Amino acid sequence: MSGVVIDKLINEISKLPGLGRKSAQRIALYLLKNRENGLVPFIKSIEEANSKIINCEICGNIDTISPCGICQNPKRDQDKICIVEDVSDLWVFERIGFYRGMYLVLGGTLSAIDDIGIDELNINELSKRIKKQNIKEVILALSTTTEGQTTSHVIADKLESLNVEVTRLARGVPIGGEVHYLDENTLSTAFESRNKIN
Amino acid sequence: MSGVVIDKLINEISKLPGLGRKSAQRIALYLLKNRENGLVPFIKSIEEANSKIINCEICGNIDTISPCGICQNPKRDQDKICIVEDVSDLWVFERIGFYRGMYLVLGGTLSAIDDIGIDELNINELSKRIKKQNIKEVILALSTTTEGQTTSHVIADKLESLNVEVTRLARGVPIGGEVHYLDENTLSTAFESRNKIN
Repeated sequence: MSGVVIDKLINEISKLPGLGRKSAQRIALYLLKNRENGLVPFIKSIEEANSKIINCEICGNIDTISPCGICQNPKRDQDKICIVEDVSDLWVFERIGFYRGMYLVLGGTLSAIDDIGIDELNINELSKRIKKQNIKEVILALSTTTEGQTTSHVIADKLESLNVEVTRLARGVPIGGEVHYLDENTLSTAFESRNKIN
Repeated sequence: MSGVVIDKLINEISKLPGLGRKSAQRIALYLLKNRENGLVPFIKSIEEANSKIINCEICGNIDTISPCGICQNPKRDQDKICIVEDVSDLWVFERIGFYRGMYLVLGGTLSAIDDIGIDELNINELSKRIKKQNIKEVILALSTTTEGQTTSHVIADKLESLNVEVTRLARGVPIGGEVHYLDENTLSTAFESRNKIN
């Protein structure tokens, strides 16, 4: 290794999700070899993001404005809230584009292991928002992991007294999924939830 | 997507080697979620590297000083030069630690496709260095690809008139390699270069 400065850089890069030490070395060398076209615009874009990107005060999305572009858009369905775990989930919905309502980004799920309780999530503001904005439907789009489902149930319980429909994503065989590759839980859930073919 | 700033960041990240758009999104979100522990030290380490890391004027290695730590180290064998393609190759040699001589980092191989000719590599300085520093052995540690081997031959040709031993890494079965997984070229090379067992 060529000393402390490069080591520090490789260390910082290897902390990024999905990167090991080998990929971090490769990226560090790439950056140091491509100063003008790689490193400089890279630093600029991170610094710009750091100074401009904020969390939306209403839904928890990230944007350069708060309320964010989605919350400020009058053309979206104001009476639906889709609850997602993370901004990346919101991005998936937006990329596909079939949903035109509002969001709430939880920023995680309830988790005993990671010590995330109900106060760490943005659930408490949700009841107020439902009343104030006259929300008709809350769609729970959380993962079908134990944590995601526990969180869904806790949220549904909290909203029971309010006059709002609480729905969740359907479970079953993924499209393009081959039955013999399905895990037991998915298969039994899909079997129990079978529909009539019209 | 949440607008231009994030898109720009994701774009810059996805240009890094080995990263696609999905991993770039994940890294961007990680950085924006972990400002104090992730993003800020990350920016700092890149900026420090950008301002401090330079290429060694003698061997092409990267370091905060030039000549680099290796070229300045009087305990190393001053009469051997190991020629490598890239700084990452030099790092592998240094990590293992059996080689205690000097280096020359080519910064690539001769390549008609990428339009890298003899002038783009650091070969021309090599002859001068061999004479001036009284080099006894030049070790070619280039890849056994067509480009690497062409480059090795060109360098060997250039050094023919000088009073210096030119060697290259042995070829054969990699240690731990299973014979039935070897490609044809490796196997035939290893067969031709077979040694007596003492």
